[in-house]
Amino acid sequence: MFKRVVICGVGLIGGSFALALRQAGLVETLVGVGRRRETLEEAQQLGLIDEIATDWAVALKGADLLLLAMPVGQMSAVMAAAAPHLEPQTLVTDGGSTKADVFEAVYSHLNHCLANVVPAHPIAGAEKSGPSAAFAELYRGKRVVLTPLPENAPESIERVRAAWAACGAVVSQMSPQDHDRVFAAVSHLPHLLAFGLVHQIQGRGNAEQLFGFAASGFRDFTRIAGSHPEMWRDICVANRHALLAELDAYLTELAYLRALLMQGDGAGLESLFAEASAARNAWAEKYLK
Amino acid sequence: MFKRVVICGVGLIGGSFALALRQAGLVETLVGVGRRRETLEEAQQLGLIDEIATDWAVALKGADLLLLAMPVGQMSAVMAAAAPHLEPQTLVTDGGSTKADVFEAVYSHLNHCLANVVPAHPIAGAEKSGPSAAFAELYRGKRVVLTPLPENAPESIERVRAAWAACGAVVSQMSPQDHDRVFAAVSHLPHLLAFGLVHQIQGRGNAEQLFGFAASGFRDFTRIAGSHPEMWRDICVANRHALLAELDAYLTELAYLRALLMQGDGAGLESLFAEASAARNAWAEKYLK
Repeated sequence: MFKRVVICGVGLIGGSFALALRQAGLVETLVGVGRRRETLEEAQQLGLIDEIATDWAVALKGADLLLLAMPVGQMSAVMAAAAPHLEPQTLVTDGGSTKADVFEAVYSHLNHCLANVVPAHPIAGAEKSGPSAAFAELYRGKRVVLTPLPENAPESIERVRAAWAACGAVVSQMSPQDHDRVFAAVSHLPHLLAFGLVHQIQGRGNAEQLFGFAASGFRDFTRIAGSHPEMWRDICVANRHALLAELDAYLTELAYLRALLMQGDGAGLESLFAEASAARNAWAEKYLK
Repeated sequence: MFKRVVICGVGLIGGSFALALRQAGLVETLVGVGRRRETLEEAQQLGLIDEIATDWAVALKGADLLLLAMPVGQMSAVMAAAAPHLEPQTLVTDGGSTKADVFEAVYSHLNHCLANVVPAHPIAGAEKSGPSAAFAELYRGKRVVLTPLPENAPESIERVRAAWAACGAVVSQMSPQDHDRVFAAVSHLPHLLAFGLVHQIQGRGNAEQLFGFAASGFRDFTRIAGSHPEMWRDICVANRHALLAELDAYLTELAYLRALLMQGDGAGLESLFAEASAARNAWAEKYLK
């Protein structure tokens, strides 16, 4: 399916894509590009990539597919650097968690090849990052959302869809605006809230005592606060408008909860908790197996 | 060690205590008391208790130890009902997640036997509740915090400590005020926040779409939103002063995060995320094995 696939950012997302494509037998040569030589060498030693390219001209010579899998804050600079070397047949997709900013970067730098650029967001992650965290099954059964451009050629969308599907993903499509609103609500806001809770506790004089009595509820609630700071900085900045709207809706919810607590309104609290609990359990029943 | 142990509330907490004491060979007869006959019968069939008592006089006749393991909102009424039947040798402990309110109930109803009443909070839970959720290993390696009364006899504290230790728990002591502040921060607030997030999403027109794209971050962040609504109503009402103080501290944190987002301050966000991430990962390294 692909003779030469170039992966920019050979960490969890890019490395797992490489391993999955290889396992599916769909690629001849995998080429790694990235900021740090050590990371690329580690990825090569781990068998994620066959070649390291230090130069976009060399990397993209004869390339069928380019995956951009860096933190979203680097998208624009990387697209600008890669743009002159994209060939007519080269498809471009990405692994960014936000899409409006990727669109902006695409229209700024890749105007000459809009037919071939199909943005994507794989809904898969882990606390670990870097090449050693990559594994071929990361995308198995996970969702990948494509946010095609109006200018995309139908066969480009289909080939990019097929590449992600070959990794085991369940592929769907959305507009970038819908995408960013949905993920602000169910992913970006929870990350912000978890980072905030841990930050707020660790700054206290009795942080050691507090952490010492934290148990399984705290463990699960804050798992995502262990996530990659740079990646989440970029997501929050890129998607700050949708995220602010979500944060404000949540602050309204907290103001309501605060009023119930102030009034000692047990019935009001119980009814809210019962609705949340029923919804959470219904969600788990439907989506967690 | 104990001839007759009475468990009021034969669910996850009470039932697991019963099973663990039995497994440790420390009890001859286990007696169950509770609101609902069916629950008591289920507990008896599951072997959590030997006898069902429908009357406090019968239940407490010759009892060595009474465990109060109902939602904390029932503490005061249960203590008032049990009080006339407590014998001079009967120790009392409880499994309540808040302690200032338990103290208030103790001083209201159990003034005649303060030497023997040693409040406790086992830091162990699960999403499931009821007799069928109970298991003997629930407390193994988990913390139990005793909040003794100034009036406690040292040997009462020691016997209650030994009972919880026999369940496999790591027992420590704290004042009820410190207890309630610590758990407001690391347990009660995260529960409130998780309930609030799910409640806020499930009330929307596009809730189905949002839930459909929620992934592992959402799953873990909201696990505790599936908790028992009545239990958490009681905890939030009982500990509302400490919880309001925590909520307000958290709202200050969110106001700061909101300002960083408004300004698109990537450096500020990254620095906060990096501190939180380092603290979360250090906590996991130390406490999760």
